[in-house]
Amino acid sequence: MPRRTVSHEDGAIYEFTPDLEPIETVESGAELTIDTRDSLDGAVQSESDVIDAVPDEVNAATGPIAVEGAEPGDVLRVEIEDVRVTEDRGRAVTIDGFGLLDEYDEIEAPRTRITPVEDGSITFDTPEGELEVPIEPVVGTIGVAPAEESYTTLFPHDHGGNLDTTEVTGGNTIYFPVFQEGAMLAMGDSKAAMADGEMCGTGAEIATDIDVTVEVIDDPAVELERPLLETDDAWKPVASADTLEEACQLANRDAIDLLAAEHGVDETDAYIFSSLVGGLEISQVVDPLVTVKNAVPKAYLSDPF
Amino acid sequence: MPRRTVSHEDGAIYEFTPDLEPIETVESGAELTIDTRDSLDGAVQSESDVIDAVPDEVNAATGPIAVEGAEPGDVLRVEIEDVRVTEDRGRAVTIDGFGLLDEYDEIEAPRTRITPVEDGSITFDTPEGELEVPIEPVVGTIGVAPAEESYTTLFPHDHGGNLDTTEVTGGNTIYFPVFQEGAMLAMGDSKAAMADGEMCGTGAEIATDIDVTVEVIDDPAVELERPLLETDDAWKPVASADTLEEACQLANRDAIDLLAAEHGVDETDAYIFSSLVGGLEISQVVDPLVTVKNAVPKAYLSDPF
Repeated sequence: MPRRTVSHEDGAIYEFTPDLEPIETVESGAELTIDTRDSLDGAVQSESDVIDAVPDEVNAATGPIAVEGAEPGDVLRVEIEDVRVTEDRGRAVTIDGFGLLDEYDEIEAPRTRITPVEDGSITFDTPEGELEVPIEPVVGTIGVAPAEESYTTLFPHDHGGNLDTTEVTGGNTIYFPVFQEGAMLAMGDSKAAMADGEMCGTGAEIATDIDVTVEVIDDPAVELERPLLETDDAWKPVASADTLEEACQLANRDAIDLLAAEHGVDETDAYIFSSLVGGLEISQVVDPLVTVKNAVPKAYLSDPF
Repeated sequence: MPRRTVSHEDGAIYEFTPDLEPIETVESGAELTIDTRDSLDGAVQSESDVIDAVPDEVNAATGPIAVEGAEPGDVLRVEIEDVRVTEDRGRAVTIDGFGLLDEYDEIEAPRTRITPVEDGSITFDTPEGELEVPIEPVVGTIGVAPAEESYTTLFPHDHGGNLDTTEVTGGNTIYFPVFQEGAMLAMGDSKAAMADGEMCGTGAEIATDIDVTVEVIDDPAVELERPLLETDDAWKPVASADTLEEACQLANRDAIDLLAAEHGVDETDAYIFSSLVGGLEISQVVDPLVTVKNAVPKAYLSDPF
């Protein structure tokens, strides 16, 4: 089958709800290119375009895409082959009421910085010259229809959503629990570059084309409660919660469950072992729920499904 | 000058106080080998040795070492050349009332796991075989005499202390604010291996020899409020606080100050730029204050001193 394109112009959501209607239905194993618009819907094209408050609709996620055969209890595997920026500029902004240092007097909001794309980098202008940042695209918002609650695309949770995790990028794979028939995958909110933490509340927000292969894992050997990320060298449960402490606890518990299942140890031994290898990583601290990963090196954990 | 040895047998502290008395005085530029005992003072040699409660004295830090010429307002540069384990086993434990998942029913405390040293690795025994973890030593507790408050070696704060940061290891350099004459450096609490987060409350605790070169930076171009870590490719402010959110704010503010000074931008532009590169990293989540780093790649920040 040729790679099919699904464009934000065909449909995009601002809320992950349990009862999403698909704009496209594909078979398990389908290769897709997902065309996404920037998280601010094109409202910011120059530094005089500022965002006074977090918009009601933000982080448009192209989709939903139903995957045939996906049933609650299954796992949806989303292999991200490549992410390409498709416009000539990104934008990074402060917004009043948003961001890690929003309450500090030194920080002004709203402010917009435009980051032009040049030769595989974005640039950030300063009085002392241009800073070049290599483009390392990130898919900020990616998820499936949740079990019972609804979440706007500003929020991350067990269904994914606004995970803002730098490793959700080309070459890596993310697995979601399937809560609803067809899974209902949607994604958008890409960045040309982003720091772990996304402290000011954005990366360099930009439109992208995302190549993915989607696959249903029927009857998985472990049931997922939350997203699981696979990189070249680690498996990383991804957990979102009100506080970083809670997110750390959830991500660590998920890692412990995987280690215990693989090595035939109890939770306590898995906990002690988890304290020796890999470890906790910050995805984002601003969305307003926060997101943490717990890396378990592949040397100690094989494919859990 | 030959490399001098300072041993825990000559003196070790369990509290960083403003008025420490040195066990050794060295000149700026001195090359030292610091001999440290394990964080539990040798109390745990087998899996039947368990720790019922966090001891009053824990994380013995060899020292204090006065560095001639160090005055309040200076910076103490501690280059860590090498960390070598000096005993045949590490130990990782759970202790009731301590650790990220202490309140979860599935986790048993106290429990001890011994991790024997074999051929450059430690091993962790499971019913399905031995897991090998390459030795990557970490200096868990390292710091100087604080400004006004005292902190037991269980706690991290602006003076350093129980930072439990995996990158405090051979090849990296850590800088401390000097709060008291002579700085009064002390270190210990090494691990043969540790996950970022140190979730169960320990890594594989072990005795080590630590090769360091200490140097006073007089009249530094920036004044430090907290430790700053230098790795091969990044500068990383290190901040400890009651919550991960607060620690993230402090580490991000420190990074912003460094970026603003280097590039002639205001705090808001530095904040936005900090949200594009490097980012926040978890050191530890258990000590009971928690510790976070904010990595700023050296591509965007030169030596600030």
